[in-house]
Amino acid sequence: MEELKSFYFKDDILYILDQRRLPHEEIYFEAKNINDVAYAIEDMLVRGAPAIGCVAAYGFYMGIKDGLDVDNVYNTLYHTRPTAVNLFWALERMKKACLNQKNLLEEAQKIEQEDIQANLSMARHGASLIKEKSVVLTHCNTGALATAGVGTALGVIKELHKQEKIDYVIADETRPYLQGSRLSAFELLKANIPHKIVVDSSAPFLISKGIVKAVFVGADRIASNGDTANKIGTFMLSLACKEYNVPFYVVAPTSTIDFNAKSFEDIPIEQRQKDEVLKCKDAFVAPAGSEAINYSFDITPAQNISAIITEKGIAYYPYTKSLQNFKE
Amino acid sequence: MEELKSFYFKDDILYILDQRRLPHEEIYFEAKNINDVAYAIEDMLVRGAPAIGCVAAYGFYMGIKDGLDVDNVYNTLYHTRPTAVNLFWALERMKKACLNQKNLLEEAQKIEQEDIQANLSMARHGASLIKEKSVVLTHCNTGALATAGVGTALGVIKELHKQEKIDYVIADETRPYLQGSRLSAFELLKANIPHKIVVDSSAPFLISKGIVKAVFVGADRIASNGDTANKIGTFMLSLACKEYNVPFYVVAPTSTIDFNAKSFEDIPIEQRQKDEVLKCKDAFVAPAGSEAINYSFDITPAQNISAIITEKGIAYYPYTKSLQNFKE
Repeated sequence: MEELKSFYFKDDILYILDQRRLPHEEIYFEAKNINDVAYAIEDMLVRGAPAIGCVAAYGFYMGIKDGLDVDNVYNTLYHTRPTAVNLFWALERMKKACLNQKNLLEEAQKIEQEDIQANLSMARHGASLIKEKSVVLTHCNTGALATAGVGTALGVIKELHKQEKIDYVIADETRPYLQGSRLSAFELLKANIPHKIVVDSSAPFLISKGIVKAVFVGADRIASNGDTANKIGTFMLSLACKEYNVPFYVVAPTSTIDFNAKSFEDIPIEQRQKDEVLKCKDAFVAPAGSEAINYSFDITPAQNISAIITEKGIAYYPYTKSLQNFKE
Repeated sequence: MEELKSFYFKDDILYILDQRRLPHEEIYFEAKNINDVAYAIEDMLVRGAPAIGCVAAYGFYMGIKDGLDVDNVYNTLYHTRPTAVNLFWALERMKKACLNQKNLLEEAQKIEQEDIQANLSMARHGASLIKEKSVVLTHCNTGALATAGVGTALGVIKELHKQEKIDYVIADETRPYLQGSRLSAFELLKANIPHKIVVDSSAPFLISKGIVKAVFVGADRIASNGDTANKIGTFMLSLACKEYNVPFYVVAPTSTIDFNAKSFEDIPIEQRQKDEVLKCKDAFVAPAGSEAINYSFDITPAQNISAIITEKGIAYYPYTKSLQNFKE
């Protein structure tokens, strides 16, 4: 299997796979400066919290290389998307490296390499939680397309497949952007992992029927008490899992933990334009005169989460205590 | 406002609004014989449990008029769709009328007129449950497009709007067939009722945030214990409502109650073709090589339902007892 890369840096160009065109076309967008990178994040050519962090780091390098001042570079990337904390984490790290006059390209490459390694650690930790061949369910896309490596939740699932513990994967389609049907199914197909796509609203029903043995999802921001912002639809899965005693696992690198956020109240939830809901891909499905509410993320309360799997180990409830072990 | 009719009978032709083309085109399919009617039900030109019952009654009349024998007519319509019980209820009634040598056209018209009246009664009963101006949420389409009259759950919402008790309506888009964004939004726009469309998976989050004051849904089949089969996604709403103490109301005529079904175990759940999930409207959104699970309906357990609103009155848990009052 050819290795799938959501982005790669070569000869001062950041090649970003345009995920808006998947699964039908694999075309890389050539980001040649910081504005190209900001556009790619804002317009969701690249998405997924860890991938956004990595790409922003390269964007930071490009901005400084082109002679922009640090605050300008920082702010341009800062205002692309509000919820995923990895973006701000990467910007802080690059800013610090810049102030310490480190080589910024090397720092960005280091962030990328660390993410690849973190993915592998999470995959091993997560896979240890499943003992027998199972049907597992996942939401959105948390694989190679959302990270620099094998992925977070989807990385665990790939590892489980290697260990022959996957019966099949249920992939929520994940409206409105369809990261499940367009991106996760694309990755699962490439990796020859048996999978079935479902409309999002059917997942709680399948959980209630006892078909699903565990749910693995990623995260965009985890508060220090364990409350987790992730793709809209994650919360309903956690609710069904709690009611029907199915393990519900969050898989994310420690860079996704926001120790400055005490709880969900400190996490801003992005609302995107209504056309994402009124349209499906490029076609209007609703009357153009209708309004919409379009929260991109929701909050899963800490008490609904069976465990949080990071590259540094597995944390259990109460997270206010257990996550502290992962603080640098 | 012009009255919206999902079907009407004139000069021995049953005109069926082709709902596959909504909201962009309003085109009536001309059903001239029983096979046309069976096609219209199976291919979902018409959908919604009460509307299916009415249309099937006219189909029954057409089949007998064209000289087909009763069993043939009955079976042709019987095998169109499995879950909505109104279809079988209407077929039984037409068969009985046929054996009693009644005028079958008049019987079909009577079924249609009774549905119109039942809609109005349900609207009044349901509206009595809401005391102040509220945000209400609904799923799928349960309006004029799903019945012969104003609708079931959407009929209640229209009545609430008349009584100035609607702040705005949240309409789940209802993948895969998009009855919410294509059909309910179309009806709400025509009736000038403020509404916002959401992707299905965000509804439980909005319920948890306290935004939604009540949920109204329809039903395709209600077992005698109150377990309710309705459009996929209904179950997750009931789960969120139960957890966050939001009233969850099922609105359906008594013809939707299957007294022969003791519980959910006696209700067959239709599974439709995978392309409905892999596609959105006519475009593939997933890789063609992927599999899908496509349950059209799910089961909401009786204990999750705050009340069942029928044309004969409102029933409360335990339904095994309260629904008996509605038995003919």
